[in-house]
Amino acid sequence: MQASRLAELVVAGMGDGGRTKALASSLRSLIVDGRLLDGDRLPAERVLAEALQMSRSTVTAAYDQLRVEGILVGRQGAGTFVSVPAIEGGRPDEDPRLGEAAHFDLSVAVLPAPSLLAAAVSAAAESIVVHLASIGLQPAGLPELRTLVASEYSRRGLPTTPDQILITSGALHGWDLLLRAFARPGAPVVTEQPTYPGVIDAALAHRVRLRPLPVDADGWHPEELDPARTPVLAHVTFDGQNPTGLWADRSTRNRVLSTFDSSTLVAVDETIIDFPSSPTVGAETSPLAHNSTVVILGSASKSFWAGLRVGWLRGPASMIRRLAALRAGQDLAPPILNQLVVAELLRRREEILPDRRDAIAGRRRALLDAIEQYCPNWTVVPPAGGLAAWIDLGGRSSTQLAIEAREHGIRVTPGTRFSQTGTHDGFLRLPYVLPIEHLEESVRRLAAASEKLPSARPRHHPNAATAWSA
Amino acid sequence: MQASRLAELVVAGMGDGGRTKALASSLRSLIVDGRLLDGDRLPAERVLAEALQMSRSTVTAAYDQLRVEGILVGRQGAGTFVSVPAIEGGRPDEDPRLGEAAHFDLSVAVLPAPSLLAAAVSAAAESIVVHLASIGLQPAGLPELRTLVASEYSRRGLPTTPDQILITSGALHGWDLLLRAFARPGAPVVTEQPTYPGVIDAALAHRVRLRPLPVDADGWHPEELDPARTPVLAHVTFDGQNPTGLWADRSTRNRVLSTFDSSTLVAVDETIIDFPSSPTVGAETSPLAHNSTVVILGSASKSFWAGLRVGWLRGPASMIRRLAALRAGQDLAPPILNQLVVAELLRRREEILPDRRDAIAGRRRALLDAIEQYCPNWTVVPPAGGLAAWIDLGGRSSTQLAIEAREHGIRVTPGTRFSQTGTHDGFLRLPYVLPIEHLEESVRRLAAASEKLPSARPRHHPNAATAWSA
Repeated sequence: MQASRLAELVVAGMGDGGRTKALASSLRSLIVDGRLLDGDRLPAERVLAEALQMSRSTVTAAYDQLRVEGILVGRQGAGTFVSVPAIEGGRPDEDPRLGEAAHFDLSVAVLPAPSLLAAAVSAAAESIVVHLASIGLQPAGLPELRTLVASEYSRRGLPTTPDQILITSGALHGWDLLLRAFARPGAPVVTEQPTYPGVIDAALAHRVRLRPLPVDADGWHPEELDPARTPVLAHVTFDGQNPTGLWADRSTRNRVLSTFDSSTLVAVDETIIDFPSSPTVGAETSPLAHNSTVVILGSASKSFWAGLRVGWLRGPASMIRRLAALRAGQDLAPPILNQLVVAELLRRREEILPDRRDAIAGRRRALLDAIEQYCPNWTVVPPAGGLAAWIDLGGRSSTQLAIEAREHGIRVTPGTRFSQTGTHDGFLRLPYVLPIEHLEESVRRLAAASEKLPSARPRHHPNAATAWSA
Repeated sequence: MQASRLAELVVAGMGDGGRTKALASSLRSLIVDGRLLDGDRLPAERVLAEALQMSRSTVTAAYDQLRVEGILVGRQGAGTFVSVPAIEGGRPDEDPRLGEAAHFDLSVAVLPAPSLLAAAVSAAAESIVVHLASIGLQPAGLPELRTLVASEYSRRGLPTTPDQILITSGALHGWDLLLRAFARPGAPVVTEQPTYPGVIDAALAHRVRLRPLPVDADGWHPEELDPARTPVLAHVTFDGQNPTGLWADRSTRNRVLSTFDSSTLVAVDETIIDFPSSPTVGAETSPLAHNSTVVILGSASKSFWAGLRVGWLRGPASMIRRLAALRAGQDLAPPILNQLVVAELLRRREEILPDRRDAIAGRRRALLDAIEQYCPNWTVVPPAGGLAAWIDLGGRSSTQLAIEAREHGIRVTPGTRFSQTGTHDGFLRLPYVLPIEHLEESVRRLAAASEKLPSARPRHHPNAATAWSA
């Protein structure tokens, strides 16, 4: 990481303690956040000291502190590197630091598979036989699945043909392909702020220039986008916005979309569309007007199971062909078997989704009740949909809370991970996908962890923090 | 595409006919090659004329010709665009231009599934049940499969632990992740020349500066790499080099690898390792010396089935963790079900591979015999392994042959697709994966197509063409 960029992030995350302690704490937060990855080389002490306008001895002392903790290692002649004890793929059940204690993962807003999934897999195991005589490579996806996905859009009032559908490895993969196809390094790209971290990570991997579309308790604020800089791509989530749980009404959709002219390709991510908090929430919205500069990203990950890795992208047929061709340099084609499973699940969606929505509704209520009971200083606007709540911690730092929560066997993602710029440290996303008793126990433990934090820490991003609770 | 880059490619592909006809033909070849994609905007006629140092009327006439053929379209005020009739994902069975005629696809070197695959899918449908209670996201892959893959390397003499294995969506996806992690735009990256087109496409998508490692009938020529420019990444295939079918002996491997110092990460692609032309070919080589700057790419696509989309990458554990974290901005994790299928196939590999090798050996022999019989002017060095032969067409253009072959119901990939720079037009890769009678019929038709081409077309890349047949 460049020294100047790191200095920016570090300053944003520093508290008010002594310089050394503050710097060590800020660096530790960046590592916990995942913005400094295992194996990343840190700038030389002298270089970071200059970028931070601090004394070199302060930086040395902070590095030393983190070396003692074992999360930095020095390699002779090569520099100082981040060294995170192995957390295979970031799942807490493999995190040795959590030891034997009971632990709960509130960092992911994803459900286990519905019980019908096993039957769908068995059905796919039979229907794959006809495909085994082929080479198994269909870059745009299986015609059978493309037809089913297209007809679902048509049913919702957006006439769609199968050649307008590209099957992907999840909605995020669709966003990644759009970035690959249409965004050169340095190109302006808009994402909501806050938004799902993967959306930001994908954009950063393509080295684009990110611009935030602010989202707060009052909704979307496209008027704050710089009108002089037309983005080539934008990513928005109108249905169960992640992490805020907002659901845009029709006029909001039109207002946001009309901000962009035809030189911006707008990706509307519908990953969470099957989870409005009540039937009336989803009913007031309608499919997007047919517009060649709007593409829709869809996914089986929330509705059915993330372990399938199947999503799709709806766009003009010529764009679909282009994106399918791009895969010749990436993953060639989606796997056949998983597509057959998802086809079966789509045919049986009405046997699956009502139960799933009911379970979620109960958990949503339980989480909000537990917060009211145990965390009276937290503020949360009840989510209109989705699988998570976005909580104002009342002046405490979610990064510090995330670190402290680990000691209590709880894994949460700090609010800063949902921001392009390290803001929103005063917010925490809490998914409500765990069983009710686990959610209640998790909130109790988070309340205990929160008690250990210095209270009323001055806010470094007052605008971001107050806008939501306003 | 930039006018200057297009001009370069066009000049490389132009024959000796009239300027207009030659320009139209060269542009047509670029479209057939896939280097100009459906929807690509061509430079304005004036701009291309300048770049080519041709008169504007010549360019206009060539564009007009291609508009008449329907592969270019003008859009009022927007420019001239490539418009390829829909070939969904490039599979000939969906290509309307091939009409009702019998057709054979010799553009892919991939086999259908072995008969045991259906049983492996059924086994996976049972073993997935224990995973359905989880969220299904393990970014580095299922521990069960990582353990099996690691133990196979250990068995071959390269001690490997499961945390050194990342499960990917095929070997190409592993290469794409390496580019994403380690190659900035403009960074020097080496690939063999010729090589598998996907390897080039992936690198170009990351906007790196490609440098060729020449490979010809005499083998690998690392001495031709510019020693002043240290690449950050290199991609090599020692086992069944694609497309040449070469198999490197131990000293060749050492010679190539020792060209690179520790600042180059070398990806050794073993996708084809299970297909030596005889047991002695594979036996004389050994696993790579343990070296932290060598990573190995593996795949289930050739050994078992491409429709599974499962591959893997072996590297240092710290790199594996880093690459797994990168997926948070791309595909999150590999799908569970396919990994279970591949685990089952790996356990039963000795029931599958001998039959597959025998079938391939028969087809290899049949293809070479048919070429000798029907195409006496073609030269081919019998491949030491792999699934394709690399043929010197004796002065004819493989691009022109690819176009003419379509009229005969045969799909082949021109030699230029295997080159970074549009060279190797005098070569054709012919896979031997189709049944023997289809291969024989295909070669008969290719011979007929070849007869219709102007013979003894002057070579524009004499070095590339003669080096192979030397």
